[in-house]
Amino acid sequence: MVQKWMIQDLKDRLAEQKQDALTEFLARYQPYDLAEMLIELEENEQIRFIAELPIALGAEILEYVDPELQYRILDRGTKETAALLLNEMSSDKVADLLLAIHPHQAATLSELLPADYREKISSLMQYPPESAGSLATVDYIAVRNYWTVEHTLQHVRKVGQDAEMVSYFYVLDNNGKLVGIVSLKQAILAKADSRLEDIMLKDFVSVSARMNQQEVATILSNYDLVALPVITDEQRMIGIITVDDLIDVIHEEATEDFQKMGGSQPLEVPYFKNSFWKLFRKRIGWLLILFVAEAYTGNVLRHFEDTLSEVIALAFFIPLLVGTGGNTGTQTVTTLVRALALGEVKPKNIFRVIRKEVSTGLILGLCMGVATFIRAQILGVGFDIGSVVAVTAIFIVIWASLIAAVLPLVLHKLRVDPAVVSGPFITTLVDGTGLIIYFSLAKLMLNL
Amino acid sequence: MVQKWMIQDLKDRLAEQKQDALTEFLARYQPYDLAEMLIELEENEQIRFIAELPIALGAEILEYVDPELQYRILDRGTKETAALLLNEMSSDKVADLLLAIHPHQAATLSELLPADYREKISSLMQYPPESAGSLATVDYIAVRNYWTVEHTLQHVRKVGQDAEMVSYFYVLDNNGKLVGIVSLKQAILAKADSRLEDIMLKDFVSVSARMNQQEVATILSNYDLVALPVITDEQRMIGIITVDDLIDVIHEEATEDFQKMGGSQPLEVPYFKNSFWKLFRKRIGWLLILFVAEAYTGNVLRHFEDTLSEVIALAFFIPLLVGTGGNTGTQTVTTLVRALALGEVKPKNIFRVIRKEVSTGLILGLCMGVATFIRAQILGVGFDIGSVVAVTAIFIVIWASLIAAVLPLVLHKLRVDPAVVSGPFITTLVDGTGLIIYFSLAKLMLNL
Repeated sequence: MVQKWMIQDLKDRLAEQKQDALTEFLARYQPYDLAEMLIELEENEQIRFIAELPIALGAEILEYVDPELQYRILDRGTKETAALLLNEMSSDKVADLLLAIHPHQAATLSELLPADYREKISSLMQYPPESAGSLATVDYIAVRNYWTVEHTLQHVRKVGQDAEMVSYFYVLDNNGKLVGIVSLKQAILAKADSRLEDIMLKDFVSVSARMNQQEVATILSNYDLVALPVITDEQRMIGIITVDDLIDVIHEEATEDFQKMGGSQPLEVPYFKNSFWKLFRKRIGWLLILFVAEAYTGNVLRHFEDTLSEVIALAFFIPLLVGTGGNTGTQTVTTLVRALALGEVKPKNIFRVIRKEVSTGLILGLCMGVATFIRAQILGVGFDIGSVVAVTAIFIVIWASLIAAVLPLVLHKLRVDPAVVSGPFITTLVDGTGLIIYFSLAKLMLNL
Repeated sequence: MVQKWMIQDLKDRLAEQKQDALTEFLARYQPYDLAEMLIELEENEQIRFIAELPIALGAEILEYVDPELQYRILDRGTKETAALLLNEMSSDKVADLLLAIHPHQAATLSELLPADYREKISSLMQYPPESAGSLATVDYIAVRNYWTVEHTLQHVRKVGQDAEMVSYFYVLDNNGKLVGIVSLKQAILAKADSRLEDIMLKDFVSVSARMNQQEVATILSNYDLVALPVITDEQRMIGIITVDDLIDVIHEEATEDFQKMGGSQPLEVPYFKNSFWKLFRKRIGWLLILFVAEAYTGNVLRHFEDTLSEVIALAFFIPLLVGTGGNTGTQTVTTLVRALALGEVKPKNIFRVIRKEVSTGLILGLCMGVATFIRAQILGVGFDIGSVVAVTAIFIVIWASLIAAVLPLVLHKLRVDPAVVSGPFITTLVDGTGLIIYFSLAKLMLNL
């Protein structure tokens, strides 16, 4: 964890302008920690800090910060440093940076890159956000099937410094098609004169550039891989996606689902980067939809106005009954939406899910029925009303379990994101329908 | 994706008992896919399938299935096959298996392992679940600081086949203390006669065996690593944690938080592995706590019984007003609990969070106030009651935003898991307090 005194120490050493003091400081920390410190410096200190660093370390640190800061540092420093840093950064990060800034600024920055590398990066930039292509880096090691292990390792010694990952070599044919993968482990364990075509893995896992990032993350975690090749429909190699980028995707997707389950649209950037106006826009939509859906509870209550004025005590239990139903529904729906996202539950399992949830709902309902009856007696509303609320509790809990089980699975089947059935959504749905159950039972059981 | 016809194909080939047909089949699929198929086979087919496979592949496939199935296969097959498979499986998976089965069964299985390996595994089994130690595997490559790169690579060629991961070598001193790390990439790029002490990384990231798995996952994702060494308090090397195991942890922790945010206790195993009785036990606790908390809404309503019977129309808006408050609170709380889990928001940011949430709540409240007023006019309850409900909407939304902003941060500060402030929790809290706001405003504004 980066502490205040570390940042102060760094500031002092930068002010002193002694290279030794800085070098000694750098040796003590990891690139990630240095990036965390960089963020806390003043702008002129940031520029000076990056300028003082070895290029490889500077580039690595830059990769940890967000594109705005990357751009500010590259733009304010000298052109030479910017060119060196940009060339050293991994190509997926450069593509992200160029996409995040103004096209004019991006054009100026791109000119610092050699023409062929610039072209590769602009091809990465074509892929839509959240696609496999957009996550790919071109800094992988390409090899040929007729190479020997010895030749390959010599090649790696030459180009390995620039590669994002040297754990795998990708065997391409004359047309740039990916025909096999050799791991560095295999190469080390094989004889020096073995040819790659004899040791390469031909049945490898790869992903299409158009595949959604969530699917890519699932494949990577299922198959326990640390990198995945990305290919075109014609099997042409585009680049690789590394596990560290996919861990970010896994976090991102879980965060999105979290926010959806809470009844807002997902935020695209970390919490504090959103203005209150942005937070407002992400939330007002669902609030209004839920408001309209909830509004008909007014009609329900007005419809039962006579029943209500006759037995005003029925009103006491409205929040308790619909609240309990909403809570049960929320429990079920969050469990199922997550299980669907992880692939633990599939739409075809709907009847198994219904059976499980309704059985659970039945015993939960019985417990809550007893609790409600006791509560009614404590409030002193008598045996009759107590019975009505107890029976209502049982029915509402089972009903909430049922719809919370059915809706996410049906939506998933219809290819609608099941996370739209949020906690607030199910609560709202149970509020209105629960009231109908309540007052219908009351009329029936109290002969009103 | 594994399809039904693939499983049928496998069953047919197993029945035919021709080794060629099986070998041809195996070449077409990844170990993970074969594991998915294994699960679908009959028990006698499972035993036969594993027995027919090369040991290394069999062990890899077994690592993908759950401990019960692992045990059943090891127990029913021959002792020789079981011993070979167990020795080939990675040590963290063996430790997990031995912990999951009955101690008697575990003792019998352990006897199949060589004594020194058995001892290493039983030391891994001491660490509590969810700790770094429990995730560690001892199948890493240990090296000495005076070795040359050439000697090291020779050593790797000898032992590399058994290692879980060959991307890093761990430099241990005479006492088993970890003093440095050399990556395979570094070794390949260095000169053959370089000594490891000259190229090894001395300031490496490591974790203590007692560290919680969530913290380990955060470190691994922040520092973009693919493996982390686990050490004792005395810097002694215990083993390594690999990125694939930590991806499982990341999924697990997000799932737990999901279920907590939905107001249940987290399930320890995938959805369908829980009996309905288990689901019931995970849910009833919070339901009853929330029931008790919600029950006082009855007291609030009885307290305002006179107001209510005088203006029965006030009852029409109860679900709408408390529902809207609950929805706003749920939106805020899910966003913040997730942001806290990712470290985007820290408890010290509390005033910044309050400012942001209350500003957002203010404009959300104004919008909902207008909506409520319009809804009241449509229901035809008159200007007076319309004004009461509109003003109440504004206050309830701001109030819900405020407590939903404060509670998770305060709990986090008090080292209580902020995810206990679930959607249902905040909804319940807003129900009761919202009613007090509503009826107090009604009495005040309508002079009741």
